[in-house]
Amino acid sequence: MKLVKVYVTLKDSVLDAQGEAIKSAVHSMGYNKVENVGMGKYFELKFADDYADLEKDVDSICDDLLANPNIETYRYEIAEAE
Amino acid sequence: MKLVKVYVTLKDSVLDAQGEAIKSAVHSMGYNKVENVGMGKYFELKFADDYADLEKDVDSICDDLLANPNIETYRYEIAEAE
Repeated sequence: MKLVKVYVTLKDSVLDAQGEAIKSAVHSMGYNKVENVGMGKYFELKFADDYADLEKDVDSICDDLLANPNIETYRYEIAEAE
Repeated sequence: MKLVKVYVTLKDSVLDAQGEAIKSAVHSMGYNKVENVGMGKYFELKFADDYADLEKDVDSICDDLLANPNIETYRYEIAEAE
């Protein structure tokens, strides 16, 4: 079985309000050396092993469902899963 | 600069309702070979290079802020960032 790990993050040009809020919270906890925090989404998709168009279909799923192409960018890794 | 990539996912024993919803959506888009979808959160934390207690503090930040220890689990990777 193939395990595809997808990471969706905001584009650099878009304000990461959640990340900024978490940075403030981390600082108020006393960890002042945290210089930046970014928040994104993480997906794990499992596919059968004999999947011919895996990368093409993962691109389509990311473009059409998992990421908002206006403000987000994504990357993924394909690994073997048991 | 150190870049810490944190992945927070639901424990296996907890129903992943968002993942199930995404699986249904992916199937309705015609990708029937997707066997399972899990959804989680992804964080990127940047720290200065000369950070002595990095792993200890990242554990604390995850335990106390980023993950809900009742239902979630986390793992992280430490990489070099420019």
